[in-house]
Order: sequence, then C-alpha cells, then structure tokens
Amino acid sequence: MSAEGTATESFAEFVAGLPLVDHHCHGVRTGTTTDADFELLATESDWPAPPGTSVFDNPFGIAVRALCAPLLDLPRHCTAEDYLRRRGELGDQEVSARLLAASGTEKYLLDTGFRASTIMTPPEMAQLTGAATQEIVRLEALAESIAPDCTAAGFSSAFEDALERALEHAVGVKSIIAYRYGLDFDPAPPTNAEVTAAAGRWLAGIEAGGLVRLTDLVLLRHLLWRAVGFGKPIQLHVGFGDADIVLHRCDPSHLTEFAHATRETGVQLMLLHCYPYIREAGILAQLFPHVWMDTSCAVSHTGPSSETLVRQSLESAPMHKVLYASDAFGLPELYLCGAQLWRRAVARILGEWVAEGFAGETDARRYAELLGRGNAIRAYGLE
Amino acid sequence: MSAEGTATESFAEFVAGLPLVDHHCHGVRTGTTTDADFELLATESDWPAPPGTSVFDNPFGIAVRALCAPLLDLPRHCTAEDYLRRRGELGDQEVSARLLAASGTEKYLLDTGFRASTIMTPPEMAQLTGAATQEIVRLEALAESIAPDCTAAGFSSAFEDALERALEHAVGVKSIIAYRYGLDFDPAPPTNAEVTAAAGRWLAGIEAGGLVRLTDLVLLRHLLWRAVGFGKPIQLHVGFGDADIVLHRCDPSHLTEFAHATRETGVQLMLLHCYPYIREAGILAQLFPHVWMDTSCAVSHTGPSSETLVRQSLESAPMHKVLYASDAFGLPELYLCGAQLWRRAVARILGEWVAEGFAGETDARRYAELLGRGNAIRAYGLE
Amino acid sequence: MSAEGTATESFAEFVAGLPLVDHHCHGVRTGTTTDADFELLATESDWPAPPGTSVFDNPFGIAVRALCAPLLDLPRHCTAEDYLRRRGELGDQEVSARLLAASGTEKYLLDTGFRASTIMTPPEMAQLTGAATQEIVRLEALAESIAPDCTAAGFSSAFEDALERALEHAVGVKSIIAYRYGLDFDPAPPTNAEVTAAAGRWLAGIEAGGLVRLTDLVLLRHLLWRAVGFGKPIQLHVGFGDADIVLHRCDPSHLTEFAHATRETGVQLMLLHCYPYIREAGILAQLFPHVWMDTSCAVSHTGPSSETLVRQSLESAPMHKVLYASDAFGLPELYLCGAQLWRRAVARILGEWVAEGFAGETDARRYAELLGRGNAIRAYGLE
Repeated sequence: MSAEGTATESFAEFVAGLPLVDHHCHGVRTGTTTDADFELLATESDWPAPPGTSVFDNPFGIAVRALCAPLLDLPRHCTAEDYLRRRGELGDQEVSARLLAASGTEKYLLDTGFRASTIMTPPEMAQLTGAATQEIVRLEALAESIAPDCTAAGFSSAFEDALERALEHAVGVKSIIAYRYGLDFDPAPPTNAEVTAAAGRWLAGIEAGGLVRLTDLVLLRHLLWRAVGFGKPIQLHVGFGDADIVLHRCDPSHLTEFAHATRETGVQLMLLHCYPYIREAGILAQLFPHVWMDTSCAVSHTGPSSETLVRQSLESAPMHKVLYASDAFGLPELYLCGAQLWRRAVARILGEWVAEGFAGETDARRYAELLGRGNAIRAYGLE
Repeated sequence: MSAEGTATESFAEFVAGLPLVDHHCHGVRTGTTTDADFELLATESDWPAPPGTSVFDNPFGIAVRALCAPLLDLPRHCTAEDYLRRRGELGDQEVSARLLAASGTEKYLLDTGFRASTIMTPPEMAQLTGAATQEIVRLEALAESIAPDCTAAGFSSAFEDALERALEHAVGVKSIIAYRYGLDFDPAPPTNAEVTAAAGRWLAGIEAGGLVRLTDLVLLRHLLWRAVGFGKPIQLHVGFGDADIVLHRCDPSHLTEFAHATRETGVQLMLLHCYPYIREAGILAQLFPHVWMDTSCAVSHTGPSSETLVRQSLESAPMHKVLYASDAFGLPELYLCGAQLWRRAVARILGEWVAEGFAGETDARRYAELLGRGNAIRAYGLE
Repeated sequence: MSAEGTATESFAEFVAGLPLVDHHCHGVRTGTTTDADFELLATESDWPAPPGTSVFDNPFGIAVRALCAPLLDLPRHCTAEDYLRRRGELGDQEVSARLLAASGTEKYLLDTGFRASTIMTPPEMAQLTGAATQEIVRLEALAESIAPDCTAAGFSSAFEDALERALEHAVGVKSIIAYRYGLDFDPAPPTNAEVTAAAGRWLAGIEAGGLVRLTDLVLLRHLLWRAVGFGKPIQLHVGFGDADIVLHRCDPSHLTEFAHATRETGVQLMLLHCYPYIREAGILAQLFPHVWMDTSCAVSHTGPSSETLVRQSLESAPMHKVLYASDAFGLPELYLCGAQLWRRAVARILGEWVAEGFAGETDARRYAELLGRGNAIRAYGLE
C-alpha cells in the first residue's frame, strides 16, 4: 500500500488501500478470549447483555458478523455461535494476526494505561502486526503507579520526573478527566499548596487502605497542566464511553476556557471519540488552532450507521484537524471494524464531494491521506 | 398480517405488513373534533398557529395531507380546507376507524392519565379497533386523584395502595417528572420524613384552594421510587414535548445516576420520544441493561424528515432495546402517521443494511419484528 | 428572476432562480482585501490557520474554490494561490459585484453594529448590488455608542431615545447577549434601580479608562427588554460563532422562559445560525408562535455538508417559521456560498419530498418561496 496511490486506481480503491496511523488505541488481549470475555469487550457496557439478547445484535456485533466473518473463512452474517466457534478453532493469535493485517494500519499509538496487564505491550503489538508502534502515557495511571512511593510534599516533583521519563519515548499523553470528574472542571491550574494538600488527602486514603484510583479534581487538573508544560499532544476523552461517564458533562464545549488558556503554550489538544458531540468538537477544531478531533470508538460501536458520524466530523472542522483512530481495546475485531468502517465512510463522503463538484479528486486524495495518516504524523511529529 | 412474513414477499412488504405493538400512546378523542380542536391537537404547541399560517404546513400537517388524505378518499396533498371538510363529512368515528385500522397496530399500551375525560378508555379503544389494549398508569395523575382524600401522614401508604391496585391490571407506569421538574433531579429516594412534609405542604395548598397539579420535587421523586418497588416498566418522558418543558433539562443523560441506582432492582426504564437527544438515549440503552428507548411522537411531528430520527435510534442501541410507539393522543392521524412513517423508515434503513451487506435478510426481518413488537412484548411481559 | 416561476421550469430551476431576502447579514468589506485579511474573514476562528494549513482546506474554503472560482473565470477546485491571485487582479469591487449579483439576493437586512467602519453602509450595499437594503440595529453597539455622553441616571432614557430614533428606519434589532454572557440569563427584566446601578458601574469604568465593551448582564438584559417594548423583531445570536462563545451556554432552549415571558408582547424572536442546536431551535419554533429560526452562517462554514443543516431546520419547525440568511460579513464569497448552498439544499430536500410523495410541487414551490423570502417579508413587515 502507498499513500500516493496510482493513476489508474479509483478513489474508493485509493482509500481502501491507504495505510492508516491509528492515533489512539490499546493493545490486543493476551491469553485466550472466552465467549464471555468477547461479549464484554464488544460493548461499552460494564455488564453482560440481558438474558435472551446478545452483543451480536448490537450495531458492532452486526458489523463483526458482516466484516470480520469472511476474514475467518465464515459466510457474512453467520450466527453468533458459528462466529465464536470459529474464533476458538483459529485461536486468538491467528484471529488477531488476520484482522489486524486486514486493517491496513501502518502505525499504532498505544495508550498503555488501561488494564495494561491483560493486553499486549507496544513491542508485542509491533511483533504481532509488523507495524510500528508508539506509546501514549495515561496521566492518571502514571500518577497512580507512583503514589505508593510518594509523600504529599514530594508528589508533584515525583510526578514531574515520572512524566519526563515517560515522555522520553512516548509521543503524547492521555487524560481521562472526563471519566474521573467531567470536562466541566475549573480550567485554571491549581496552586502548589492546593496540590500538596490534595496529594496529602489522597495518599493518606491509600495508606488507610483506600483505592489508589485517582478522582481528586485538584490532582486531575494538576496532571493535565503538568502535561501542558511538556508540550506533547494531550489526548482527552470526550463523550461516549462506559457507564462511569455522565454524558452531558463530557460535552467538549466545557473545554472552551481550557482551550483559551492553553492556546499559546504550544500544546495540541486531541479530542477523542466525541460522540454525540461531534459537531461541538468540530466547531472547536475550527476555532482553536491547537484543537483536533476524531470519532474513533463511536465508529465501531455504530457499525452500519457509522458513516453519519464521520460525515459530521467533516462538517465544520478543517481537513487538517480530523484524525483516524480505532480506540480498539482487546478485541482484534475492534481494529478491523474501526478501520474498515472509517475507510468506507471516507470513501463515500469524499467520493460524493467529488461527484457533486465540491472537490477535485486530487484534493479528495490529499484530504483522505491527511485524515488517515498525515494529520497524525504532523500532530505527533512522527517519522 | 403475520410477524413471520412469507417467503415471497419483499422486505419492504414484510415491514409494511408487520403487526405493531404501540407501547406508548393515548386514546382517540371522543365527541366531535372541530377544526380548531384539530389545529391544536396536531402540534405540540399550546397556542394556535399565528395568523396567516396553518398546522397543515407543519411537517406533521404535510404528512397528514400526504398519508391520511387518500384513506379519506381525497387526493394526496389536498388543501387544509378540503381535508377538514371531508373529515367533517365522514365523522370522527369513521375517520378513526379507517386510520387506526390502516396503522396495522395489534396492541395499544394506553397512558390513561392525561385529559382522560376527553379520550377513549382502553375498552373503547379495543372496541373501535378490534386490537388488544393494555393500560399504563401515569404516576402523577394517580397521586393527584387520591390527594383530596389523603392526610400528609397517610399519603405515602395511600399512594402505595392505589398503585398496587392499578398495577393489578396495568402493565407499566409513566412518569412525567421531565415536565413537572426536569430530568436533573436528585436520583436518591427521599426519606419518609421528607415525603410526609412535602405531602403536608401540597395537601395544605390544595385545601387552601391551590392547584392539585403535583410539582413538588420530593413527591415526584417519591412516586418514581415507589414505582421502582413494584418492578413493572417505567416510561419516562424525555426531550420534545409541549412548552412546559425546558429542553436541555430533559437530556436523558441527566438520568445516568438514576440508572445506576435502579440497575439491580429488576425495573426497566423506557425512554420515550428522546428527540433531540436520540443519540444520548441510544448510548444509555447500550450501557445499561435495563434502559430502552423509542422515538415515538417525534416521528409524527417531523413528517417527511422522520426517517433521520429512526436512523439515529439505531446507531448505537442494541436491536433488543429500541421500540415502536406513536405517542398518539386524540387525533387518529397521529396513530396512522406514527405507524406509516416508522414502517417507511425501518424498511429503508434495514433495507439499506441488507443492500450494503451489513445484515442478512433473515436478521433484518428479525430486527424489524423486534423493533415493531417483540421488544415491547419482552419488556412488558405481554401475551 | 420571479418568485412565481414559470410553468415549464423544473423545481430545481425554480429554487435556483428564487429572489432571496437575506434577513441577516453585514456589509461587504471596503478597501483592498489582502491575502491575510481573506484568511481571517474566511473562518470563525480569531487566529490564523496553523503553519502548513490553509482556510482553503476548510469546508468553506473548499466551497469557495468550487462555487466562486468559476465566477472569477477560474477552473473549479483551483489552488488557493490561483484564487487569491485572480481575486487581486480583478479587485475587490469587481469580485464583490460578480459574487453578490450571482447570489440572487433581492434584499439585504444589514446588521450595522459590528466593525462598521470596515464595511459598506446600507446605501453603499444598495449601490453595489442594485438590491434593496434595510437596517438591523445591534443593541449592544447602540448602547456603547451613547455611553460616553450618559450619566448613570440618564442611561436608560438615553438608550430608549436612541433606540426609538434608530427604529424609525431600522426594521429590527439584534442582540449578542449569547456572546457577551450566554443565553442562560435571568429571563426577567431588571428593575430600574438595578439598571441605574449597573450603568453607574459601567460608565465609571469607562471614565477610568476601561473598555466601552458592554458585558454587564443587567444592562444586556435591559437592552433586550427595551427592544421588546418596541415590538420589532429581535434577532438573537444562537450557537456557533467565534471563540468568545461557550457553546453549551448558547443552546436556545435556555431561552424557554424568555420565550414564555415575551409570547404575548407582539415581538418576534429570530434565532440566528443555531448550529449545532438546529433541532432545539426548530422545536422552539414549533412550540412558540413568535419564535423563528435560520441556519445562516453555519451553511457557508460547512460547505459540502451544509445540506444536512438545512435538512434539520426543516424537521419540526413550521414552514412559516424558517428563514434564509447568509450572515455574510466582509467577504463577498460568504454571500455567494450562503445563497448557493442554501438553494442547493432546499432544492434537494423539497425535491425529495415531492419525489417521495410527501408534498405536491405546488406546495414545494410555496414552501421554497416562504423560506427564501416570504417568511422574512412577513416577519419584518417588509414592502
């Protein structure tokens, strides 16, 4: 595959063959995936499907049976039972190898801060796929990992050191303040005294046997602002995710003041997923030079309807500010569907622009290349 | 009509002939409907159309002239004057009989708590249509009906008794807390002391000549939590409705904590209408095993554009959690348009999925049947 | 061009030739437009596009290269460089004359309160285009213009006098309370004492060298309520605009109580732009007899995707309550794209309604005429 394409291939073929940079995803699950594992990884829900129902009748499950089944030598629209049986016969390694190869991804930027012990590391992902990998550091996970060895007074500089070390090789960071609090946070950085006091409360709680899970808003804001200081792109979870989230508090327009406050720092804000606030994210990406966006996981989880999401992401955002990502975690089906559904959508939308005289084909190919890889390369300074 | 269809009919024919369970609607108006009555029942507005305008140029009115006119022996797109004249000639009974028969509804779940004296009862609806009917109890109306005979201390148990009696035959309840307050309510149940105090204030107000209309938030929350205790499905008004509502306070994501709090109780939460928060509702239906949704009244009131609403309801929600409803009240045109517009949308959307290889036709028929009747049967334990 | 059309022209031709009333726009820029001027006027962003990117790859820039280039004798999809070079060759006057003529606008309602010294006045616009012009008075600009000559006690009556004078010829007013505060303001009018106190603070600040820019919420509410008193249509900025705005605070459903409070005053509320809250605006336009809406600037800034916005504006609003506007400011390309994209969308959407049997062609032509000019004529009492 080549980003330039050839003179004779159609635009749809060009998009189908475009090597993708997946700027936000996680590793494939290690070990054997049971049917119950599959059902839970195939939804953003935290609980099994109700009795008598199956995730294979969710939009993502429908897409799996349509798009992944043939790659496992099954007929399209096979039953859930047939799919899971064949998956077991082939084994996780083979299924992952086939589906990730078919995704046409040339580089994965891997968020390593979520259930890291259950998924492949960046080197393992590189070995499995033959693609390049880079790491994205999850701020909250990094803070939680150093907490046991910190004092309240020492937390801030210990975190600073840990982040500096992590960013020697990582190409960006990820914040899940949307999950832990919401995007409606005070956009100003907390003071040193506030941070020390908050760290004291958090660490005392841990010492008393409490959860390491960081939910203190002062500390969440502190991590974000420390990351601003390092200047590498900051991925922010926005909108749709699991049931921890209160959706309306994850409307990205809550980030407006934070965007003003960071506009001249040199940092880039990468809004992830954005469903159902895709238009709000696109508007921010037009207004602020350092705001970018994707539709990532929402594409897989809307399966047959995913084109409409990608379409909205191209409504008002500059072509230079929208990115591809799968946000896949664990299941190889999420990488494949993320990529194939995205390709289908981009081919149709930009193809329409060409057919209706809005864009010339040269521009359309240039835009597809920006969306699929060029923007990620520019945002993260890759290659 | 049969839910199974026959081997030779097309998918569009299958959907056109599918018997529907209308899981949320009201009775047809009794007595004679004047032109002024028609104009007010044909909109969610509480006031007549401005001078020089007509509801027949609203999207619903356009749909009426397109879809209902031929059933009254008129040409499509007839004038408002011709439509109303012919309606008067035929009489309300005949118009209702024709339009409800043409809706292809096999069962109506009737909310009996809104202007009950002006519309048909469930037995009258059964007699008019030949279809089966079941009752849905409106919580606030039930509380208002018992208020005159209650003391503050006795309100809670009197309501409990009344609800128990009502649920001997009713298949679910309806809450309009969205209208009376908003969905941004404290999700915890109020204490007994709070309820007694609130009941005291409300009943004292009534005794002093105040409105019976229940708007006290403590009592609204209490009714909802008492309904949770009975375990039958709870219908919740969400989004679009008349001008009593402040729309952004009816975003269903305000229900997130309430959904967490009720997840293990066995109750089912049925989100009604959901426009323009259809995506938010679909996300909740994916995340929470006990959350369901429909697009009901918004389908009729968007007429020619209604397909896009049904399309959004199928973006991320499981096929097992989306239902059909008309939310029709009073006008038989609302039942007919609700059903015909919904059938048109489902036939086109699922038909596209088949044409584009996302779903096999067997699955598409199964999904149409779930959406049109199967999910309602499962949710309410019908038949 | 004629609003009636001829018997033989197609519906698409009818819409293409419909003379438009642009009920909300500004003047064309005077003087010479440099490339840097163009880049800033072609986006809602307040800052230049990031290095290596160009507004010509924004949806609006793409539309300019598709729709405006041929009118400047360039091939469709020409490069940014070619476009700007040719623009310079022709000169601003010639470019404006060509593009505004091609927009097919018969009347412009011009908001004269934003950077008035840099754009053409209504008479200059009339001279340039040969079309009629009317003025819309921006409330905040009017207040700021009289501030230097006011005392705190005299502000209210001075503003009243100034507004009365302005409305001798202006056909409506414009409020940008959305920019200066948000739409989530207290819907009640402030008291006289509150106004005098607030005016005192504001004027003292100006005297001390502060900004004249009016951001005091009491005064913003006062201006709005004074305008209500005069009874001419009030244009309200809603949703999408530049980076001054916090988007979620510009959801028009925040205006619900204000709409109730003004319903019987005789004033008309014109919701402008409304993106991404088009559905919310349409619902309000259905519910309240005096609420109207448009999609104006969002149409130009979504270029190839603009049809979907116009489509949403026709979902639930009455055909009598949706208007055309370009919201163009400065660049003639904004008038042309606003008009041509809107015509394309309306021709397709209403054309589909006809093709699918939802509307007869007579109604479709009537609706297009209402949307494009008739509703503006009725709302503002033009001609």
